[in-house]
Amino acid sequence: MNSTVQLYDATLRDGMQGEGMSLTAREKVRVAHRLDELGIDLIEAGFPASNPKELELFGLLAQERFEHAQIVAFGMTRRRGVAAQDDENLRILAECFAPVCTLVGKTWDLHLEKVVKVGREENLAMIEESVAFLVGCGKRVIYDAEHFFDAWRANEEYALECLRVAARGGAERVVLCDTNGSSLPHQVGTAVGEVVAALGRDVEVGIHCHNDLECGVANTLAAVLNGATQVQGTMNGIGERTGNANLVSIIGNLQFKLGYDVLPGDRIEKLTATAHFVDELLNLAPDPNQPFVGRNAFAHKGGLHVAGVRADASTFEHMEPELVGNERQLIVSELAGRHTVSEKAAAVGLEVDDATAQRVIDRVKELEADGYQFEAADGSFELLLRKELGGHEPLFVLESWRTIVDQNAQGHVECEATIKIWVGGERYVRSAEGNGPVNALDAALRSVVAEFHPHLRDIELTDYKVRLLDQHHGTGATTRVLVQSTDGRRTWGTIGVAQNVIAASWQALVESFEYAEAPREPAPAADADGDPATTGRPA
Amino acid sequence: MNSTVQLYDATLRDGMQGEGMSLTAREKVRVAHRLDELGIDLIEAGFPASNPKELELFGLLAQERFEHAQIVAFGMTRRRGVAAQDDENLRILAECFAPVCTLVGKTWDLHLEKVVKVGREENLAMIEESVAFLVGCGKRVIYDAEHFFDAWRANEEYALECLRVAARGGAERVVLCDTNGSSLPHQVGTAVGEVVAALGRDVEVGIHCHNDLECGVANTLAAVLNGATQVQGTMNGIGERTGNANLVSIIGNLQFKLGYDVLPGDRIEKLTATAHFVDELLNLAPDPNQPFVGRNAFAHKGGLHVAGVRADASTFEHMEPELVGNERQLIVSELAGRHTVSEKAAAVGLEVDDATAQRVIDRVKELEADGYQFEAADGSFELLLRKELGGHEPLFVLESWRTIVDQNAQGHVECEATIKIWVGGERYVRSAEGNGPVNALDAALRSVVAEFHPHLRDIELTDYKVRLLDQHHGTGATTRVLVQSTDGRRTWGTIGVAQNVIAASWQALVESFEYAEAPREPAPAADADGDPATTGRPA
Repeated sequence: MNSTVQLYDATLRDGMQGEGMSLTAREKVRVAHRLDELGIDLIEAGFPASNPKELELFGLLAQERFEHAQIVAFGMTRRRGVAAQDDENLRILAECFAPVCTLVGKTWDLHLEKVVKVGREENLAMIEESVAFLVGCGKRVIYDAEHFFDAWRANEEYALECLRVAARGGAERVVLCDTNGSSLPHQVGTAVGEVVAALGRDVEVGIHCHNDLECGVANTLAAVLNGATQVQGTMNGIGERTGNANLVSIIGNLQFKLGYDVLPGDRIEKLTATAHFVDELLNLAPDPNQPFVGRNAFAHKGGLHVAGVRADASTFEHMEPELVGNERQLIVSELAGRHTVSEKAAAVGLEVDDATAQRVIDRVKELEADGYQFEAADGSFELLLRKELGGHEPLFVLESWRTIVDQNAQGHVECEATIKIWVGGERYVRSAEGNGPVNALDAALRSVVAEFHPHLRDIELTDYKVRLLDQHHGTGATTRVLVQSTDGRRTWGTIGVAQNVIAASWQALVESFEYAEAPREPAPAADADGDPATTGRPA
Repeated sequence: MNSTVQLYDATLRDGMQGEGMSLTAREKVRVAHRLDELGIDLIEAGFPASNPKELELFGLLAQERFEHAQIVAFGMTRRRGVAAQDDENLRILAECFAPVCTLVGKTWDLHLEKVVKVGREENLAMIEESVAFLVGCGKRVIYDAEHFFDAWRANEEYALECLRVAARGGAERVVLCDTNGSSLPHQVGTAVGEVVAALGRDVEVGIHCHNDLECGVANTLAAVLNGATQVQGTMNGIGERTGNANLVSIIGNLQFKLGYDVLPGDRIEKLTATAHFVDELLNLAPDPNQPFVGRNAFAHKGGLHVAGVRADASTFEHMEPELVGNERQLIVSELAGRHTVSEKAAAVGLEVDDATAQRVIDRVKELEADGYQFEAADGSFELLLRKELGGHEPLFVLESWRTIVDQNAQGHVECEATIKIWVGGERYVRSAEGNGPVNALDAALRSVVAEFHPHLRDIELTDYKVRLLDQHHGTGATTRVLVQSTDGRRTWGTIGVAQNVIAASWQALVESFEYAEAPREPAPAADADGDPATTGRPA
């Protein structure tokens, strides 16, 4: 049960087929390094024959040093009627620095007939010759059998023959691809078992699934339980249509549920950070409900569950979150009990009695009815706690603020904010310009408060999200603004809700400064693995 | 293989435990009706004993008529040391109008010992007596065996005994719950098969899974393949932590892959609309990559795939999207070929030659490099097409615009916009107030263009999303604004990208009007099932 299973990451090639997915070559190099640090065995970095940008990427990768991972170049079997050594795409693979090449080829009659119009015998020759050519050039070759499970259902013998000729050509592994995601776990398990038995020791078998039936991960696990020794997937399951099988969940399951040591102890703790890093680079908000690594994966909401978790984590959690670099979250919301509030207060060094906890809960409920939500706005929640506890000193008293944004006849956009605030009995009037109205307000406010609290200069707003809330009020949309800020060590979220987006942004901005100013333990320094927070300012 | 499987929807109870999930009582009634129209058999509407809002909901539901679905009230087995008839939560269930009650009870030693501190024998009595009491009150009773699979692994005999006493008490069904989501499909399948064999004809078995290992759907299907005859889940898989098993995917799989007629033909076509309706009510952007019903579920990006799909849809699609009320999408993006562009043009009644298609692709690539994305901005893409084709008449020529937003010393927020534009050689200066800067610009612009194109008065901006883009530029964040608009029949998206959020919003706004003004076929009237678009205006 403990035989090795290889981890093959296709994020940078197959994953890039997903809607809105795109990375620059340099970003792909950064991802490759993070995957290597995680302990991934094979990184399918791209399709060098497909376009010049991909070829450029391999040029960059050739100069990088990877600790453990092997870089894989993806390509296709030769075109019909062309000898392997004369096929341009194979030549590019042969000349590429990557030690491993993955070739995809046809296995399904329907495709031979309708898509590529190639006869069966010729297809077999195309497979074997292409593999043999690259092996002859010194490459390790993996053969991806496209649409394998449909092919298996249509014509088992021919599908198996395709795999055999790939093995004969020298492929070290054949990968059974459920390219259209149409197979279910019991089908994949059975087919893989039969293929592994038929191929014997000739060649290793891998599995490549998609998530069209929401079974990508389950299909992959079924394959491993039936003899597959390589799993392919993408980080966070990105990919075309409904995505590729989610390699993050596959890793979590293999290691903690099926007993495979796919990543050594300290490596697997980087799972959460690596998954989030890829999301951030792709400009995706990490899915808070994602298994293993999502912010809510170990979050407890109902009061009863929270009491149970405090008693014994295994009563409600399927594993310890720290093992994958995640942490337990206790959500404060309508269903929360006083337990949850005291836990959260204790986590920031504050003690609340029952009466205060109850007031906090009541206040949260009131605000939630107005559209506030604290799960992503931990900074605003902590401020709320401090206000209920008493002793919170506001940074300033607001008199007024104003923003002016205009685009002039030359097309140039300008933006200016003016604030009038009182601090310690003195009135301050400050103006600032900025990239946008919120940025300008930020600059104006900071110019005053940083005189009194110099460390506030270090704060950066790193994310800014706006959405309209449910409208049953009639007089216009309520806007919720979520702001994320950092001081380089710690990151926090604050929220503002108002009809006017600038007013909502002002609220979130002010809370961000107030949070930063509240007395607390200094945060630990960012570790060597953590990428610095992005440094954009909101418009 | 075609025996009936009951569909049990827990969206309104278990689903509400998810982060940020909350609905008003009236919204829950609307959801219940949509689930009924879809053909769901049992709707677990809430936990009436848990708080007054839930009780109020059941009061409302009692006055509604449902075509097919039965309403289920959720509750717990009696407390220890209290007779069933004296237990307050059971009394509330007995008095509730709902014909079916689901009782959850303990099955796992660990919980008996550490969480509720109840002996095994007493627990059995609690289960049996609670079930019998409600059956005696004329209710149909379903028994939810909490943490069943952990219990089964720890102590098979006792777990089975819990189910037996529930059956003895008169439960029509016992549901095996993988409450902490810790089980894998092969484990669930085996356990369910053994339970079904052990219980025989005494009682039916159901399955209730969670998605902590990303196997919620697969676990549910494994259970059905091993004799479970009821599936529980939530719409779009909402729920605590990583969510409940996704009932939408379960339905799609049961009906189209496993041959169960869970919903009659025309009902299942409502699957996509129902799933999206629930998301919208929860103020969630529907997941475009969601299996079966996501916008991208049948979307094809790579040029090769698109060519294949045009040849024969089954070469790349696992089923016809129309069967679940979805549609095939062809994505225009970096990887797109000219095929895709001509398809999209044809869909809006335009013909493009190869040279124009190429120019469109080049333009899309340029803009994408600047942060534009057209997948969610179909309106902007169509405008781009029209501009490349030539013959597009801009609505106006911009001279300048300005917005002023301020909060005065009394706390009152005001917002005003002034635009200076040229139409037909005449200069127009207009000001307007609004809930926010974009709303004010919208009002000012509309006041001019609607004089020339009266139908533009009917357009409403229904959604407004802002996010910062990747920052490797150094001088500040690029902001992307996506606006969704409707004229009551058709909905379209437009996009703006700029450093300044107001400038980006202005772009998206202008494109929305320009899109609406372009000559096209009138859209079909919204059908009776479609809920009217939300009518909020952005700030």
